[in-house]
Amino acid sequence: MKTHNFSAGPSILPQEVIRQASKAIMNINNLDLSILEISHRSKDFVDIIDEARELTKKILKIPQEYEVLFLQGGASLQFYMSALNLLETGGIGGYIDTGTWSTKAIKEANKVGKVHVIASSRDEGYKYLPKNIKLDKNIDYLHFTSNNTIYGTQFKSFSELYNLAQSRNAKLICDMSSDIFSKVFDISQFDLIYAGAQKNLGPAGATLIIIKKEILKNNNALPTYLNYSTHIEKESMFNTPPVFSIYVAMLTLRWIQENGGLASIEKKNKNKANAMYDEIDRNPLFSGYTENTDRSIMNATFKLNNHKLESEFKKLCHESRISGIYGHRSIGGYRASMYNALEIDSVNKLIEIMQIIEKIS
Amino acid sequence: MKTHNFSAGPSILPQEVIRQASKAIMNINNLDLSILEISHRSKDFVDIIDEARELTKKILKIPQEYEVLFLQGGASLQFYMSALNLLETGGIGGYIDTGTWSTKAIKEANKVGKVHVIASSRDEGYKYLPKNIKLDKNIDYLHFTSNNTIYGTQFKSFSELYNLAQSRNAKLICDMSSDIFSKVFDISQFDLIYAGAQKNLGPAGATLIIIKKEILKNNNALPTYLNYSTHIEKESMFNTPPVFSIYVAMLTLRWIQENGGLASIEKKNKNKANAMYDEIDRNPLFSGYTENTDRSIMNATFKLNNHKLESEFKKLCHESRISGIYGHRSIGGYRASMYNALEIDSVNKLIEIMQIIEKIS
Repeated sequence: MKTHNFSAGPSILPQEVIRQASKAIMNINNLDLSILEISHRSKDFVDIIDEARELTKKILKIPQEYEVLFLQGGASLQFYMSALNLLETGGIGGYIDTGTWSTKAIKEANKVGKVHVIASSRDEGYKYLPKNIKLDKNIDYLHFTSNNTIYGTQFKSFSELYNLAQSRNAKLICDMSSDIFSKVFDISQFDLIYAGAQKNLGPAGATLIIIKKEILKNNNALPTYLNYSTHIEKESMFNTPPVFSIYVAMLTLRWIQENGGLASIEKKNKNKANAMYDEIDRNPLFSGYTENTDRSIMNATFKLNNHKLESEFKKLCHESRISGIYGHRSIGGYRASMYNALEIDSVNKLIEIMQIIEKIS
Repeated sequence: MKTHNFSAGPSILPQEVIRQASKAIMNINNLDLSILEISHRSKDFVDIIDEARELTKKILKIPQEYEVLFLQGGASLQFYMSALNLLETGGIGGYIDTGTWSTKAIKEANKVGKVHVIASSRDEGYKYLPKNIKLDKNIDYLHFTSNNTIYGTQFKSFSELYNLAQSRNAKLICDMSSDIFSKVFDISQFDLIYAGAQKNLGPAGATLIIIKKEILKNNNALPTYLNYSTHIEKESMFNTPPVFSIYVAMLTLRWIQENGGLASIEKKNKNKANAMYDEIDRNPLFSGYTENTDRSIMNATFKLNNHKLESEFKKLCHESRISGIYGHRSIGGYRASMYNALEIDSVNKLIEIMQIIEKIS
C-alpha cells in the first residue's frame, strides 16, 4: 500500500525522480562512479548544474538580467545575507510580518541595520494576510514571505506589494521557499527571491537564489561566502556546492518541464487544494485555521472540533498510510501539505478518512 | 572493470555505504518513504543525526566538554564564522599560511579584525610546512590547515602548534577538512575543528564542527546562523539540516567503526601512501612536488619529468579506469588522493601503470 506523504518539508518528491536519484547513487552517466564521489569540477557535474540553472530560467521565464544561484544554508542564512547585501548604510529594510519565517527575517535584518515592520497579522495569530498596506516612509526594500507553511496563508497576487515597493522606489525581496514552482507568477516584479529547496524543488541542502544583477554593488568588505557577487562570478562554484541536492533539483525541474510546466502544475495544485478545503468547510467535524481568502494551496491547516476523536482520527490515518499531517508544534491541529509531487489520490484518501470519522462520530 | 577513484573531493566513499545510501533513497526504515522526503523532525531522522553525533564522539574519542555540529556552507563559510565567533574586539587572530585554504581563511578573518600571519611557506610555492615557528605577540587563537590538498603537505604532529598556542594562552583552531578521520590524533589539543564532509566523511553538503563549549561567549549580536551557540542549543536543527549528507556521513562513520576505527584506518592509509611515495621516489620518470618530511598520506602530488609522455600516461590511466589523478589547476601535474575508502589495489594499479610507462619510455 502506498504512503500518502503530506509532510511539510522536507517533503514528497516525484517517484521517478526518486528512482533516478537512487540509480545515480550507484552509477552516474555510466562512469561506474556514484554521483556522491565525483568532483564538482568534473564535466559530468558542471553539465548537471548548468542544466539545473537553465531549467530554472526556462520554467520560471526568468529575464536575462537575473542570475540563478544554488547555495547552502537555507532561507535561515538568506534572512541575514539578503539584508547584508541590500540594506544601505543608514537605510531601512521594510518587512511584512506574516508569521514565524517573516519574524526570523526581521530579527536578522535588525542585526544589519534599521528595520520598519510595515504591516503584521500577529494580532490574530497570523490567521490572515495584511491588506491595503500603507507605507509612510522610504525603504531600501520590501521583504515578504509568499507562503506561510505554519499557518497556511499564501499571497495570491504579488501586485499590491509590488506596487507598494514601486511607490517608494524600493526593491522587492521574497522568501518563496514553500511555493516557488507551484504556480505561474511574474518574476520581473522581484529583485531578489530565495528559497530553500526542500519543498517543491528537491531534498534539503540546497538554496535557490534568483537575483537581478543590477541591484548589487561591488562590496569587497562583505564576507566572501555571504556576498551574492561571489557566487554570481563563480557560477555557484565558489566552493564545493551541495552536489547531490543540486542533482536531484535538476531531476525535479526536468519532471516539472515534462509535466507541462507551471501552468499545468498550478492547475493540479488548485484541484487538490479545492478538494481539501471543500471537505474542511463541508465536514462539521473540522474547521480551517486561516481566513478563507488567504488560504494556501500548498498547506491546508485545520482542526478537529471534537478533541475526543483525535486518537480515532490518528488511527484511521495510520491504517490508510496517511503520513505527516500533524500541525506545526507552535499552533497544533493538522496540516495537509500538498506540494507538487503529491497526487490527487492522496488528497482523496485523506478526505475519505475525514468522511469516515464523520460517519462514526 | 572497477573504476579507481583518486578524486580530490568530493571523493571515493565505501561501496557498502553507497549501496545503503541508494537503498535509503528508495525506502528508509521500511517506511515506504525516501530519506529525501521525510521531515527532519521525524524520529527516523533524529535517530540518524543522533547516531552520527555519537559515532563522531566515539571514533575521535571526543571529551565531554566538546560539542559536535553538522552545518552547511563548507569550510569556506567556516573561515569567516570561526573568526567572527572567536576573534575578540581589538584582539589578533594568528594564522599559519600553508597554501590556498589558509590564505582564504586569512582573507575572511581580515574582514572581522586584526590578523597576524605567524609563518608562511609561500616563498617556496607551499612545498614545505613552516617549522620552529616563533610567536612574538599575544593572539586570541592560532589557526592552521592540517592537510593541504593542493600541494600535498600534511602536519604529522600537532604538538608544536599546540605548544605554540599554549605559550600565548591562545586557542587552537584547525581546518581539518581533508584529513579528519584518516588517523589517530589527540582532540583535546584543539578548541575548534571544522571540516567539509566531502573527503573522508561523506558527500558534499555537510560541514562537521567540533567545538569546546567553554570558549564561546553568549553574543546575541551575531547573525543567528553564524553563531555557534545557536547550533549547540538547537543540536544542529536550528533550520532544516542537509538531511541526506548527514545520513551518508552516519553510514560512513559506521563503516569506520566496523573496520577497526582510526588505528586501523591509519595503518591502511600509511600503507597506501608508502607504496605510492616509494614508487614516485624509485621511478626515474616521476618526481614528488613536496618536501619528503611533509608529505601527505591523503594526497600525493607528483610530476612526470618527461612532458612528452603525458598523453601516453593519460591513455594508459584511462584504459585502466584510473580516474581523478590530475593536479589542481593552480600547480598542474598529478595528484593521487588516497582517502579512507580507496583500496590498496587502486594504488597498486596506478603504480603498475607508472612502471609500464617507465618500461616503454
